[in-house]
Amino acid sequence: MAEDVGKAIEDSRLSGLMAPWSVAIIGASARKEGWSGSAIPTLQRMGFKGDIHPVNAKYDELNGLPCHASVADIPGPVDVALIFVPKAVLPQVLEECGRKGVKGAVILAAGFSETGEEGRALEDRIRTIANTHGIAVCGPNCLGLANLGNGFMGLTSATFPDDLSPGGTALISQSGQLMMVLLTHAHDQGAHLRYIVSTGNEMNVEAADYAGYALADPAVTSVAMVLEGLRDPARFLAVARQAMTAQKPLIVLKIGRSARAARTALAHTGKMAGAHRTYAAVFRQGNVIAVDDPMELAQVATLFEKCPPPRGERVGVVSFSGGWCGVIADQAETLGIELTDFTSETVARLRPLLDFTPPDNPLDLSGNVTTHPERWAEALEAVAADDNTDILVVFIHQVRAAWREGLIRPLEDLAARTDKPILVVYDGGKVVEEGYERLARARRLPIYRGTRPMLRALRHFLDFHARLSRAAKSAPMPEPAPRPAILDQVAGRSLSEYDAKALLREAGLPMVGEALCDDLRTAEEAARDIGFPVVLKGLADGMEHKTEAGLVRLGIGDAAGLRTAFEDLSAKLHGTTLNGGSPKYVVQQMISGGVEAIIGVQNDPDFGPMILVGVGGTLTELVGDVALRRAPLTPEDAAEMIDETRLAALLDGYRGAPPADRAALEDTIVRLSRFAVAHAAHIAEIDLNPVLVLPRGKGCVAVDALIVKTDGAA
Amino acid sequence: MAEDVGKAIEDSRLSGLMAPWSVAIIGASARKEGWSGSAIPTLQRMGFKGDIHPVNAKYDELNGLPCHASVADIPGPVDVALIFVPKAVLPQVLEECGRKGVKGAVILAAGFSETGEEGRALEDRIRTIANTHGIAVCGPNCLGLANLGNGFMGLTSATFPDDLSPGGTALISQSGQLMMVLLTHAHDQGAHLRYIVSTGNEMNVEAADYAGYALADPAVTSVAMVLEGLRDPARFLAVARQAMTAQKPLIVLKIGRSARAARTALAHTGKMAGAHRTYAAVFRQGNVIAVDDPMELAQVATLFEKCPPPRGERVGVVSFSGGWCGVIADQAETLGIELTDFTSETVARLRPLLDFTPPDNPLDLSGNVTTHPERWAEALEAVAADDNTDILVVFIHQVRAAWREGLIRPLEDLAARTDKPILVVYDGGKVVEEGYERLARARRLPIYRGTRPMLRALRHFLDFHARLSRAAKSAPMPEPAPRPAILDQVAGRSLSEYDAKALLREAGLPMVGEALCDDLRTAEEAARDIGFPVVLKGLADGMEHKTEAGLVRLGIGDAAGLRTAFEDLSAKLHGTTLNGGSPKYVVQQMISGGVEAIIGVQNDPDFGPMILVGVGGTLTELVGDVALRRAPLTPEDAAEMIDETRLAALLDGYRGAPPADRAALEDTIVRLSRFAVAHAAHIAEIDLNPVLVLPRGKGCVAVDALIVKTDGAA
Repeated sequence: MAEDVGKAIEDSRLSGLMAPWSVAIIGASARKEGWSGSAIPTLQRMGFKGDIHPVNAKYDELNGLPCHASVADIPGPVDVALIFVPKAVLPQVLEECGRKGVKGAVILAAGFSETGEEGRALEDRIRTIANTHGIAVCGPNCLGLANLGNGFMGLTSATFPDDLSPGGTALISQSGQLMMVLLTHAHDQGAHLRYIVSTGNEMNVEAADYAGYALADPAVTSVAMVLEGLRDPARFLAVARQAMTAQKPLIVLKIGRSARAARTALAHTGKMAGAHRTYAAVFRQGNVIAVDDPMELAQVATLFEKCPPPRGERVGVVSFSGGWCGVIADQAETLGIELTDFTSETVARLRPLLDFTPPDNPLDLSGNVTTHPERWAEALEAVAADDNTDILVVFIHQVRAAWREGLIRPLEDLAARTDKPILVVYDGGKVVEEGYERLARARRLPIYRGTRPMLRALRHFLDFHARLSRAAKSAPMPEPAPRPAILDQVAGRSLSEYDAKALLREAGLPMVGEALCDDLRTAEEAARDIGFPVVLKGLADGMEHKTEAGLVRLGIGDAAGLRTAFEDLSAKLHGTTLNGGSPKYVVQQMISGGVEAIIGVQNDPDFGPMILVGVGGTLTELVGDVALRRAPLTPEDAAEMIDETRLAALLDGYRGAPPADRAALEDTIVRLSRFAVAHAAHIAEIDLNPVLVLPRGKGCVAVDALIVKTDGAA
Repeated sequence: MAEDVGKAIEDSRLSGLMAPWSVAIIGASARKEGWSGSAIPTLQRMGFKGDIHPVNAKYDELNGLPCHASVADIPGPVDVALIFVPKAVLPQVLEECGRKGVKGAVILAAGFSETGEEGRALEDRIRTIANTHGIAVCGPNCLGLANLGNGFMGLTSATFPDDLSPGGTALISQSGQLMMVLLTHAHDQGAHLRYIVSTGNEMNVEAADYAGYALADPAVTSVAMVLEGLRDPARFLAVARQAMTAQKPLIVLKIGRSARAARTALAHTGKMAGAHRTYAAVFRQGNVIAVDDPMELAQVATLFEKCPPPRGERVGVVSFSGGWCGVIADQAETLGIELTDFTSETVARLRPLLDFTPPDNPLDLSGNVTTHPERWAEALEAVAADDNTDILVVFIHQVRAAWREGLIRPLEDLAARTDKPILVVYDGGKVVEEGYERLARARRLPIYRGTRPMLRALRHFLDFHARLSRAAKSAPMPEPAPRPAILDQVAGRSLSEYDAKALLREAGLPMVGEALCDDLRTAEEAARDIGFPVVLKGLADGMEHKTEAGLVRLGIGDAAGLRTAFEDLSAKLHGTTLNGGSPKYVVQQMISGGVEAIIGVQNDPDFGPMILVGVGGTLTELVGDVALRRAPLTPEDAAEMIDETRLAALLDGYRGAPPADRAALEDTIVRLSRFAVAHAAHIAEIDLNPVLVLPRGKGCVAVDALIVKTDGAA
């Protein structure tokens, strides 16, 4: 999976499509209904700054513009064509566009690959034409795209807000209807969009390409995406890294966590949803903000557009409702958001502003807000100036129109002066709409209906900024390793436990000391070498579950015990074979104590080896929490994974146990991740369970291991 | 804690306050600003059906009504007085009201018990007057109350919607500002309110009283409450039971989960927040719906007001956006909401309505919704008729005004005919406001902005109905038991492990066999009686942590082993005492195997003994999930508690272990809960950990026990 970080930024293939200065409307009409008639008036209304060229042999003139019979007749260059012609004529029209040197095309029509064989064939045909001529196509089966920066509104929509003005948010959606939902949410939220794209069937431009283009635009502050699936996961990862480098958030609503949604996505745009857990892990690792609701997507994007990076995470709250202060305190705690304690200076400054309420955070100005509006302004100033406050949250609720100015103006003034983020909660319904509208249009004041969406957006905002530095460290990519010979010497898909351990031991992973033996004599020798106590295991085909089959003897203390155990196992193995030969025995060092961990590898078809870490042994299922990351891992990744699970508590020294050698475990996780990447072509699955993490300074050691070959292996 | 179920229903103390037909406005004025001037116009505008009597010596007439110098001058009876006079005059005015026979009073003024000593004294004084005359007082320090059923709007508000019409929701809030927030949310949501109460300082009427009154009104379908704390927990429990009997939901936003919110609540209305975990448990047990957000409170209440009980939990979804179908499928899975599979009849009926999309749930009608509006209507009918569908969810998004009728009308028609709940998601911002408004006013169609709030409300709705029958079974209340003598024979606050077990064993709880011994001889006798293997423990003051102090010897197999262990322990105990005498020894039956559980009791100051159940032994902390309920418990409660924790998986036979005797554990939980209630006056805390649950049929047995006496004990 090649990953070309620079590609997106340098890619200018999309400039004609995304930032056109000359637009051909092919199949433009005078009909009022439908987009073929409304496209030109829409462009004119949105103040498109470039040239508009209607193309339709039926007219000489349309919307006050000369109308051409063919795209070839247009004088001067054409950047993009909005195409409204019957499907059957599409290949010809696209061919003409190609000859004219048109750089981009928007094809809204549905009925292509999403409908079956015939549609797929037509889509293949027009893709070939587009690719031959280097035309970047938005769609087909989409709602188009817009660049509010230059007024290019190539978006069909039943109803979109009239007062769209360009801002910092790019909105890229694989679902057309959700694009429209988001457009209305973003507008309601007061987010200012720049690019708006409905990607449709992604014939030769995919969602990640648009995202890459948008990220490279300095005017873009964040990219919000709705994804049903990825054509090219590596391309998405490259764009995620591009976002990380640019310190701009990629906010993603990924559909398809549930089986039903995955089926829907497939029916909808023919995209495979992929494994949700894998996506969640990849997103987290790449500091991609994952949301699961369209409204939340808009709310988070608004916050990034309107607020500078916070200098810390401590929140100061100003309100005039004690009950509401309780609500926000409770909800903030749930989300791990810290409400600060005001400094003594701030407390002294606040005290004279309050009658009966304490100068605490969250601050309740109570009725003062109407009886003494100047106290409201002063309280805002005081909290904004508070040294313990990094972020302000201001509550405004229903007020008489007469009070509105006194409430809102100081907030607008403050926002213009302070460099601390200010989030406004305007908690009310329709009766307070006017005040909401005014604040929503303010450039520096993200506004929320209710505390919960505000706090949720803030949580994403804080996490993103906290992870910016951490996430920037990415592990170097190991070179692919040659295929280990043992993989071809084994018949089945899995290696034996012994072979697996031998392979991993050779790769430098700490595996329990053991020896493969044919008979009692070699077993006795091995036990002497390893040192008692030992474990004896019997190996035979079809008896992989050794414990259940009674083929494991633990804690053998001496030679006599070994003999008894051996005789017992050999009786059990009578008549069995191993790889066509005699069954074998493993003598293993017996290790007592230590914390049990599991480290696993699953080779994901989209993202390659994924590493899983969690509580091991018999507790894995019961405790049921594991951390997942894409390999290769940095030591920081490994530490973070441990901290995400209850393993951290066990390693710290649970219930009086000595602290375990966490550093050794982290090292093993990193090594296994590198091994997995180097062997991604050959190995589908690895499981080390348990890995015993011994007391600090004594390392860790895997006592059981499983390796499954990739399908391609013999 | 007396609990009088019938009290609330029979209580007519509040009828004058809550449903007045004659209102005195004491201190009414001609000033436009402020409530003393706006109260009468407001009552007139809201169409109050009773008599309005202004009282103010300064006027002869106000708002076209004769104005009286004193409440005594009013001809005929007065139900309620809205009082706007300076605090100092209040006692006198209330006294006059009492003599007049006024049944209720609304006192908005602040500056009473919430402000300190002086205010508290004044509040005490007016409470005495009110109680003497039997006046039910709303407030002081409140925003008043309203009964939309008879147009009684005794609510001060900066801005409230003009078009409030009476419905089924009662809204009772300890926070005035949150009451206003909720009022606007409810209105926006299309909820129709009946009672609206801001309870203020709850001088002699508390939140639960209003709730009880509202529940008894047949027109009320649900009661939504904002609580900061409870004056009288028993009263609340009685009202919760009243709600259960009436099959009406009590939906509660309880503030004070976090320490900061608890502090805020205390400062705000002087109420103690109580332990959140306890509240959560009590709510769950009483089928009280707990929410943590004002908007959610309104959204849930709306659903109950507008929808009949569902006949099942299977949801069918009709939409015209594939992307949105994915969002709802994902979110529904997260919340455990089942999207049904349509019957084959429905599938056959749907197929001809669709072009490229499958006849699956969630259903995506795609562009058909505009090109073939009749298909939309037919799809709605088909899913409403589907035998596998109990509940419909319908998605509507931004549409051209021209399409609106075709989208909305079939929905309105269907709602009027079907008895299946229909929930509408109208996912868009301001541009779609008109359609939203129209649907919000519909009596049978709860409407939501976005899927997440809809699904969250639906989850509460389903849980409430599912638990209606289960929750109705409440455990009979045990009689208080006489104080056990052993409690007075022990010096400290805790009983020794031996005494605790003896007391519990006597009460019929399964405790491990053991004997208290003074010396080796009695220990040997005990071991013979109990049977080897045994455990030997040493008991001494100040050495409660026996394991850590090395005072526990496990698995003693014979008399020789017992002797060695005894000598070892007696050396360790040299120089110690027990209750002033010599240290003692316990010989205990050694039990191997079994699943470890914990059963605990905590005597809550508000709710009495709370029972805790979870995974026991060394895993308790690691697994970290426990269930909590108020005692006494039914067997169903005990079963439910086990199912809430990972204990259920362990008892089922984790990793090949035999299934454990779950029935015995349930029985022990119930018994302990009854013991705790009977001894609530004497025992503050009980811990059985671990309780070993043996294989099925073999029972369970507690091997360690702790009992802590109440503070009042010697």
